[in-house]
Amino acid sequence: MKPDKIGDADFANYFCTYGYLYHQKDMLEDQQRMTAYHDAVRLNPALFRGKTVLDVGTGSGILAIWAAQCGARKVYAVEATYMATHAKKLVEANGLGDVVTIIQSTVEEVELPEQVDVIISEWMGYFLLRESMFDSVIVARDRWLKPGGAMFPSHATMSIAPIRTGVNSQKHAEYEDSCRGWDEFVDDTKDHYGVDMSALTETFDAEQREFFLNTSAWVDIHPSQVLGKACVICDWDLHKVTLEDIKNLDVPFELRIHETGASGPSEVGAFAGWFDVSFRGSEANPCENVVDLTTAPDANGATHWGQQAFYLSPGISAADGAHLEGRLEMQRKKENQRLYDVRLTWRQGDGEKINESVGERRNVWHIE
Amino acid sequence: MKPDKIGDADFANYFCTYGYLYHQKDMLEDQQRMTAYHDAVRLNPALFRGKTVLDVGTGSGILAIWAAQCGARKVYAVEATYMATHAKKLVEANGLGDVVTIIQSTVEEVELPEQVDVIISEWMGYFLLRESMFDSVIVARDRWLKPGGAMFPSHATMSIAPIRTGVNSQKHAEYEDSCRGWDEFVDDTKDHYGVDMSALTETFDAEQREFFLNTSAWVDIHPSQVLGKACVICDWDLHKVTLEDIKNLDVPFELRIHETGASGPSEVGAFAGWFDVSFRGSEANPCENVVDLTTAPDANGATHWGQQAFYLSPGISAADGAHLEGRLEMQRKKENQRLYDVRLTWRQGDGEKINESVGERRNVWHIE
Ligand SMILES: Nc1ncnc2c1ncn2[C@@H]1O[C@H](CSCC[C@H](N)C(=O)O)[C@@H](O)[C@H]1O
Ligand SMILES: Nc1ncnc2c1ncn2[C@@H]1O[C@H](CSCC[C@H](N)C(=O)O)[C@@H](O)[C@H]1O
Repeated sequence: MKPDKIGDADFANYFCTYGYLYHQKDMLEDQQRMTAYHDAVRLNPALFRGKTVLDVGTGSGILAIWAAQCGARKVYAVEATYMATHAKKLVEANGLGDVVTIIQSTVEEVELPEQVDVIISEWMGYFLLRESMFDSVIVARDRWLKPGGAMFPSHATMSIAPIRTGVNSQKHAEYEDSCRGWDEFVDDTKDHYGVDMSALTETFDAEQREFFLNTSAWVDIHPSQVLGKACVICDWDLHKVTLEDIKNLDVPFELRIHETGASGPSEVGAFAGWFDVSFRGSEANPCENVVDLTTAPDANGATHWGQQAFYLSPGISAADGAHLEGRLEMQRKKENQRLYDVRLTWRQGDGEKINESVGERRNVWHIE
Repeated sequence: MKPDKIGDADFANYFCTYGYLYHQKDMLEDQQRMTAYHDAVRLNPALFRGKTVLDVGTGSGILAIWAAQCGARKVYAVEATYMATHAKKLVEANGLGDVVTIIQSTVEEVELPEQVDVIISEWMGYFLLRESMFDSVIVARDRWLKPGGAMFPSHATMSIAPIRTGVNSQKHAEYEDSCRGWDEFVDDTKDHYGVDMSALTETFDAEQREFFLNTSAWVDIHPSQVLGKACVICDWDLHKVTLEDIKNLDVPFELRIHETGASGPSEVGAFAGWFDVSFRGSEANPCENVVDLTTAPDANGATHWGQQAFYLSPGISAADGAHLEGRLEMQRKKENQRLYDVRLTWRQGDGEKINESVGERRNVWHIE
């Protein structure tokens, strides 16, 4: 069921899944996510006790409930989908019906009786920005957060690193298989049905490249796959960052391959991207206990966000200590502002200087 | 890329996939589908030679090309998505650019310079009606088909039959697993995060029932699984059928379990539904060679439509010769007119009379 005020396409492409408890449960079972938010609230009672809180996109209501349990005077919990009904039930069953007010609305359209001391929200998507939900949090912040109020989380960074992987070659092989399959199909269609499909070979090839070679993927990378120190490409104070800042990125990066003492060069099969957020409170209302949530490669397994892998075909052959420098551009898709294209452009250096013989490389990936 | 005239949600939910050659290729590789349409055209040249043809939803352009190859004077090939561009290329590469005119438009909005002798279209979805594309064909027919003109295909039936399967029990086990998983989740969330989720147990249960027990599934059934003669629940002349006729169905059925001479009763694990279409031409312009396309269970494997299985939990225990009689209701979903809910209501009979002790049973399935 689509709530009236959500646009048709935005419902079909985005909100729809959040209406399922099954999907909320996936997030509620992500222990790293849960522990970070829970700790951020319960270890900083001074920021919640007697305060007013806005939970942007409350989903099942979990963050609102924690804020209330920690002594908030009033929690406004806004949720666009019918999940709001379930959140209401949950709040009441947990005896917090007079503290937490669940409001089914988009946060853009909500009317609250007062401004709030804290905005809490779990808005992060793959590689931080996918889903573009932070747009909504900015709207809420600029309208409903008191001067000096605290954002939970308060800071966010995005990082990329070169990684070792065999999946890039595998994707390339799948792409080539698919093209071979097309060629057989062209022959069969000519033989059996008298139509020559070869005029569309290029179109099919381009489509399959997009799918196999220009689409990033969810991955759970082991730290041992990381070949060089991650580069922080963005570092934002969420109290101050604007829509302009996050809308389209164009940022430099530099990556250096670890010195391993290996005899041959390393093969960089992909760039991996992830994000961290932290809960530090605002300048006026700092957290007593700072809490961090990272989605970096972890030997104990990924959060539900995993990392995004931007596969390289072919990979990059890089010696110990080599460096890659370039830019990352990230743009919203025209057809769907909640999705992004990521473009990486880089040159390779040995020691301190760029290796002119290798030339600039560039690729674009869709984050789906 | 969404063409301007398609609604946002209809694009996201429906048209979007048809813009990919990959998806068109799946249909173009369905040999039973291809052979039936190809034969229908080439074995009935009298209906095409010198005639005008409208191809509703031409996709890659294949049906339009066949019509032109068979001597049509003019073929109007209408396609809503950007696949139209590829179809145009294909038509030209096959030397038919002056016979086939590709028009990118919905067929509802297209303007043609004349009425046509034949409408050809491949509009069938799972269990015939899913996707509701025949709505568009009716609009095209009522506006653009000459009196006496021929529909390709001209007739369609829908059938259901009782089948043997273990998947119904498996689905039930998965459903139960999922509920057990929820119970553990409730315990963990209480223990680790101090929130009692049990108030949502019923909601989760209902959601999982919908998913596991009330959703029909694509299947490729072997004829040996069919436990009784199929019942034709609808039989339509596509020259005459109206939107009213197909919009919502409420039809009786009667199914009889085969006499196998087995000692115990058979277990009916699901009802299976499929469709047939045939190409007979119109009364005024009958086909010389009638061609049929069936999606019934086939030992050589299914068409890309397969069959739809409506799983039963629990199954029905039915003796040799027992019969099931009831009604099938099929209604469009409010949120998405291209999807349907199927409701079956039945009673069980032994020999000729209804077994009053068993009582009426009923279930609803979503066709996704
Ligand atoms: N603009 C908006 N207004 C209201 N709710 C929104 C929104 N954009 C996204 N949401 C909701 O925000 C939720 C994000 S998922 C996080 C859910 C919950 N806070 C938790 O941490 O478990 C989804 O339920 C989604 O429907
Ligand atoms: N109302 C409408 N107007 C125009 N095209 C439509 C339409 N509804 C569906 N379509 C198109 O109809 C096609 C159905 S699939 C069949 C494609 C092709 N005729 C073949 O037989 O291979 C899709 O490409 C879809 O985009």
